[in-house]
Amino acid sequence: MNESRVIEVKQNILSHNDRVADEFRKQRREENMFLLDVMGSPGAGKTSFLLALIKQLRQNPEVNIGVIEADLESDVDAMKIKEAGIPSVELNTKGVCHVEMGMMQKAYSAFGGKAFDYLFLENIGNLVCPADFDTGCHKRVMLLSVPEGWDKVCKYPPMFAVVDALIVTKCDYLPLNPDFDMKALYEHARALNPNLTIFETSARTGEGFDAVAEWLTSQRAALLA
Amino acid sequence: MNESRVIEVKQNILSHNDRVADEFRKQRREENMFLLDVMGSPGAGKTSFLLALIKQLRQNPEVNIGVIEADLESDVDAMKIKEAGIPSVELNTKGVCHVEMGMMQKAYSAFGGKAFDYLFLENIGNLVCPADFDTGCHKRVMLLSVPEGWDKVCKYPPMFAVVDALIVTKCDYLPLNPDFDMKALYEHARALNPNLTIFETSARTGEGFDAVAEWLTSQRAALLA
Repeated sequence: MNESRVIEVKQNILSHNDRVADEFRKQRREENMFLLDVMGSPGAGKTSFLLALIKQLRQNPEVNIGVIEADLESDVDAMKIKEAGIPSVELNTKGVCHVEMGMMQKAYSAFGGKAFDYLFLENIGNLVCPADFDTGCHKRVMLLSVPEGWDKVCKYPPMFAVVDALIVTKCDYLPLNPDFDMKALYEHARALNPNLTIFETSARTGEGFDAVAEWLTSQRAALLA
Repeated sequence: MNESRVIEVKQNILSHNDRVADEFRKQRREENMFLLDVMGSPGAGKTSFLLALIKQLRQNPEVNIGVIEADLESDVDAMKIKEAGIPSVELNTKGVCHVEMGMMQKAYSAFGGKAFDYLFLENIGNLVCPADFDTGCHKRVMLLSVPEGWDKVCKYPPMFAVVDALIVTKCDYLPLNPDFDMKALYEHARALNPNLTIFETSARTGEGFDAVAEWLTSQRAALLA
């Protein structure tokens, strides 16, 4: 197998994907819709993060929120979102390790033109591949859970480099993880990405979600300004 | 971009990789060397698992053990293995989300013909992509940590389907995770993979490593029989 041929195929896929993503992002902006791509390892707490964040945002009863729930298979997460009364669409990648624009467009159209202020994409649990694929969202965040360990920033740098915000999740586990060096995480993450916004949260205690909701609200306001 | 062309390229890569892997596996068998591929999410505890397992295996002072430490970047894990006095080679995939045979052969040759009874590959932290790529090992195990949640078996089935053993790690976290349904994990995992061997471990307390070492010893004996 010719390696340069593989690289060429991948580059073709990515540049096509980027063009479609730019167009999609512009269209959603025209509809006053703010899209957020939520990425992270399996078990980083993406669904719990979304549930806690949406609860916070809904303190404003006029806000309209939707969720696209991506999974290789199964509707475990999609059911949790539906049970919370949040309009959602299940995006089944059929084993593919990331979300790309073809899937995103199809999932979006399944809402049938519904108007949202915020549309969240829960990406596939994978700290590597989704970093390469633009999903047409306006901002991207990644979750890193305390039990995973702070040193993931050294071992999986691409994801930390491409996101707008890093959400440290499961901070209620900190007392059990004396080795979790928050200072080192901040330093290494900002060395890769100087403008990175960082939040410390716990979906269990609710810690940090006021700050995340405030950040998101201001990001949307800036987009629509 | 033509999707069927992408699928064709991927299938070519995989079938070439499978052929090289079979040959590699046979050669190591002839040298009485047993290879184990250790897979799992970022932060599942792969390095801690290896350190605890090797400590257990070394109760037999005659056993020779080596480790191939794969990472996208950084030598964080490789240093931990080196500090424990274990011969190791760092395999840097330069951002690639899995290990394939070209990398494996290069890493193996860096040992310069050293004789090992056991050679461990710590694969890239990724619960999706490595499932597709045969690394020429004799057996494959995956780690699932308690903080990740039992339901990962529903959401990432391919990995559970291809491995020989599932190692549940960080079991010392169980009292903190009343939602972790061990019975459901066993049931779902064995529905995907009826012959799956399952271990419950904690690298912190040492729980379960006698059983894993015993399993590994018997797997090697069966290979060489």
